Amino acid sequence: MKVSQLFGKTLKDAPKDVENRTAAQMIRAGYIDQTGAGIYTFLPLGHRVLEKINTIIREEMDAIDGQEILMPALHPASLWKTTGRWDVDVMYKTKSQTGQDYGLGWTHEEIVTPLAKKFINSYKDLPKSVYQIQVKFRDEIRAKSGLLRTREFIMKDMYSFHSDNADLDKYYEKVKQAYVKILDRLGIKDKTYLTYASGGDFSKYSHEYQTLIEAGEDIIYVCDKCKLAVNNEIIDEIKGCPECGNKDLKEKKASETANIFKLGNRFTEAFGFKYLDKEGVQQIPVMGCYGFGPSRAMGTVAEALSDDKGLVWPDEIAPYRVYLLSIGEEAFQEASKLSDELEKAGVEVLFDDTNDSAGEKFARADLLGIPVRITVSPKTLETGGFEYKKRTGENSEIVPEDSIIEKIKNG
Amino acid sequence: MKVSQLFGKTLKDAPKDVENRTAAQMIRAGYIDQTGAGIYTFLPLGHRVLEKINTIIREEMDAIDGQEILMPALHPASLWKTTGRWDVDVMYKTKSQTGQDYGLGWTHEEIVTPLAKKFINSYKDLPKSVYQIQVKFRDEIRAKSGLLRTREFIMKDMYSFHSDNADLDKYYEKVKQAYVKILDRLGIKDKTYLTYASGGDFSKYSHEYQTLIEAGEDIIYVCDKCKLAVNNEIIDEIKGCPECGNKDLKEKKASETANIFKLGNRFTEAFGFKYLDKEGVQQIPVMGCYGFGPSRAMGTVAEALSDDKGLVWPDEIAPYRVYLLSIGEEAFQEASKLSDELEKAGVEVLFDDTNDSAGEKFARADLLGIPVRITVSPKTLETGGFEYKKRTGENSEIVPEDSIIEKIKNG
Repeated sequence: MKVSQLFGKTLKDAPKDVENRTAAQMIRAGYIDQTGAGIYTFLPLGHRVLEKINTIIREEMDAIDGQEILMPALHPASLWKTTGRWDVDVMYKTKSQTGQDYGLGWTHEEIVTPLAKKFINSYKDLPKSVYQIQVKFRDEIRAKSGLLRTREFIMKDMYSFHSDNADLDKYYEKVKQAYVKILDRLGIKDKTYLTYASGGDFSKYSHEYQTLIEAGEDIIYVCDKCKLAVNNEIIDEIKGCPECGNKDLKEKKASETANIFKLGNRFTEAFGFKYLDKEGVQQIPVMGCYGFGPSRAMGTVAEALSDDKGLVWPDEIAPYRVYLLSIGEEAFQEASKLSDELEKAGVEVLFDDTNDSAGEKFARADLLGIPVRITVSPKTLETGGFEYKKRTGENSEIVPEDSIIEKIKNG
Repeated sequence: MKVSQLFGKTLKDAPKDVENRTAAQMIRAGYIDQTGAGIYTFLPLGHRVLEKINTIIREEMDAIDGQEILMPALHPASLWKTTGRWDVDVMYKTKSQTGQDYGLGWTHEEIVTPLAKKFINSYKDLPKSVYQIQVKFRDEIRAKSGLLRTREFIMKDMYSFHSDNADLDKYYEKVKQAYVKILDRLGIKDKTYLTYASGGDFSKYSHEYQTLIEAGEDIIYVCDKCKLAVNNEIIDEIKGCPECGNKDLKEKKASETANIFKLGNRFTEAFGFKYLDKEGVQQIPVMGCYGFGPSRAMGTVAEALSDDKGLVWPDEIAPYRVYLLSIGEEAFQEASKLSDELEKAGVEVLFDDTNDSAGEKFARADLLGIPVRITVSPKTLETGGFEYKKRTGENSEIVPEDSIIEKIKNG
């Protein structure tokens, strides 16, 4: 892809009404655009990042036998009245021409539970786990922090169904491992803490994955020994590390990247969902639910890894692998050739073919945060090579023409 | 994937409240589930079909320089008031806790036009073409015909921006060619007619791609000579084939699979969107818009190709390539082995590992409409092979064990 052709331009100035540092960077860099307060468009660069995050999440959910489905966003009111949650204030509501009331989905227990009830009749049908990656809506009074708190967002929500709590517990641990793999691939594993939080109506505790970032809206208390944390909302009740009893917990600002809940029979009971056990006796299945928001994760990764110069994307979710730029006319021809060769070799490359100055191109490369920058200039051509620099590295090096692809692929 | 593990079961009976034949088949076969009138969930099988349709559309849009983005579904009212379309009755509306009014997107001119205005300032920035594959909502008074007329659906909508009408015309023809490729890959090219329709407020005519199916809600008049058609809504005005003047047009029932519109400056003007031409003079760009609904296309393909026994999916969008079943205990072991081997060879296989009778398994294979059925039985094992049958073929044949993978791959 050529920078001149890309839909979405690098803007000279940071947008004025965006207080979040990395949201401003993403807007300036042409990753996202603010359609309204808390409502964003993903431009081609941002869409590529989002899709790569989705792919990672899909792979890890598939690996633990999650089956992908797609549920609707428009929810008939009757389903929410069944569980007594129709009046939750974060739900947008709409009345149709036909008089029917609908809520816009901010979570999907009310859809997935009666759905699973149709297909799960016997212990032989259990366990089952389904997930979707889908748009969700929340009527937030204050949208803020860029992609961290929005009125419309993309969510991966998974729901599992089990014959009993022991089976749920086993699967719950599997999901924990899968989430650590996702966090690792997103480059935020080290900054993210498994955090004990309130279980709400459903169970004693739930678990959150809290990532340490300055823009975070949550306060957590970290136990350095166990790499665990406790959410502010239950710290008075729990009073120390739930694992080792350590009272010396450190207060930190963090943002919730994911959460997992044991729902027990809260929803299965409400929908009269039963299965026949081995003895032919009717039992109520128990559920778990597991959220991971790709669009919020994009914002969190940006917050956690970016610097003053701009964004820094980890290899697996960067929109392109290489940012290629040239200085001078002759170098432009060489860079064009290299761009074609890289594409042929399956390397995703964004070629800065603009007439901007070298300084502007270097600044854009830093702002966009693509992992590898390749510069072609009269100086590098003299040496028969190209300048190779990692976004996260201090130094650059000259790499000969015939080994540049290998260098890009293997670092 | 094993049938016993699949989320979504073959139902014994057709659902009672679904009047559309293939929607009933898709529900019985576990492809979709009706969450509410005109609101569906895509189960794992249906989700695979939908994703494959999306992939085909993406590939063909990328091939004509469409750039993928993702716009929001929640639209601030102010944007729709700018174009005077806030009061369109098919738009669901919601008022937030903050007092702000939103509409749910049923089309995206009101979002994409001010977006493009931010990035297109000069003739050098033109042309540009962006698309998204996204959920849309329509407050339909009567939802019917399964996936053909729903209140929530998936839509690919592309918007192009041009310096003048000549450039728009050129791109419009490119999109036509891309759409024919998509229709071909979906297996409905032969049944689909480029159809002249009303241009609405925007231009004299628009074009629809109308597919001949019994459940179709539209009436079109087909010119056999030109493989063109005219929509009922303009037949009185146009009175014959717009290409050859032929007055002997044939009346047919059809369903709109896609549509393309020249929007002219209807939206660019409303949003005060201008660019500087080569002479430095401000001009208003013109737009085209190009819809193709993946979820409706899924319903249309089902309607166009299925038979009384069940669904028939073309190779490129079938959820699996092979439906594998066995008869008897020994054959089950062999089938399990074959299933593993196929998966290793990269062949998508759905293995019917249930205890159902041979008759039930054959009926399920026909209902699900997967392109190739492989049967392992004592009889086939005696011959050292497997029974191979195409869903669309009358006859089966025995294929030796060592050439079965090649046979599946090459047909």
